Amino acid sequence: MPKHFEQAPGLHHEPVPETEGFVFNQTMLRVKDPQKSLDFYSRVLGMRLVRKLDFPEMKFTLYFLGYLDERQASTVPTDDAYRTTYTFGREAMLELTHNWGTENDDDFAYHNGNDQPQGFGHIGIAVPDVYSACDRFEALHVDFVKKPDDGQMKGLAFIKDPDGYWIEILQPDMLEYQRKD
Amino acid sequence: MPKHFEQAPGLHHEPVPETEGFVFNQTMLRVKDPQKSLDFYSRVLGMRLVRKLDFPEMKFTLYFLGYLDERQASTVPTDDAYRTTYTFGREAMLELTHNWGTENDDDFAYHNGNDQPQGFGHIGIAVPDVYSACDRFEALHVDFVKKPDDGQMKGLAFIKDPDGYWIEILQPDMLEYQRKD
Repeated sequence: MPKHFEQAPGLHHEPVPETEGFVFNQTMLRVKDPQKSLDFYSRVLGMRLVRKLDFPEMKFTLYFLGYLDERQASTVPTDDAYRTTYTFGREAMLELTHNWGTENDDDFAYHNGNDQPQGFGHIGIAVPDVYSACDRFEALHVDFVKKPDDGQMKGLAFIKDPDGYWIEILQPDMLEYQRKD
Repeated sequence: MPKHFEQAPGLHHEPVPETEGFVFNQTMLRVKDPQKSLDFYSRVLGMRLVRKLDFPEMKFTLYFLGYLDERQASTVPTDDAYRTTYTFGREAMLELTHNWGTENDDDFAYHNGNDQPQGFGHIGIAVPDVYSACDRFEALHVDFVKKPDDGQMKGLAFIKDPDGYWIEILQPDMLEYQRKD
């Protein structure tokens, strides 16, 4: 089994046994108003809130969301401490950080990484049908950066979350067909 | 089965069948020099490069990396188009975007989201043993934002990737023990 599926300068090809068991667990975004963000990620995008950690002495709260089907959800520990371990051990958790009070400051806004200065670009959600997903987002008055058939890249969209972070909406096999054309 | 495992204002508690099959697929970061980034993510962090997509007309390349064990790696399609579908369909892919030429501009740097203006915070890697992982990172001369026992939060670290993006290094059961104290 080759280590990588593509060639590119810089790639390290030897096994790295010291990294066995490493898991890409989380992506953290700061949010201004958790009430709006939790509504968006749970109602519009269908994520579950798995863990909430309050740090009153430092005046912030962390919210950990993710996609869990019914089978996965049935394995989540109800005990808080064990659920913390579960939350930090699995892939693809979205961590939202709320520094208390920002929601009450009309002038406060986070930087989405696509306006200058650039850095972080987006998170991406794979969906079974990009057109029906985006029709629903339109009906829910979600802000679009790009509708599926705008621009050169057909069949993929970008929407904005309540803080203006970009979320790519993509249909995995749509991209396969594009590359075959 | 409850929808969520915590209570918080804003949460939507009814089922959202329209989001069935949604997958948190990717997190995208722009990188200045892919040779340095691929070395870091493959050698220091042990990720595999699963797919590379070149867009010569728009002068950028996308690199998709992730953690795949031997069993998972054995299921990755070798056909490029099917591997594209695989890449966009699974959880926890790190997408690195390289806009050609930035690596040759000494003054060019991306914004890490933790300096002002803030937004994106970090990605996080779960590791079996945070102390041995960090001892190895030190031996490899990785830049630390926080060593595991610095500050109030014991047993978790932050390192920097070649662009200065923060990467949390955490041991899932370490956090459980903390919360039990």
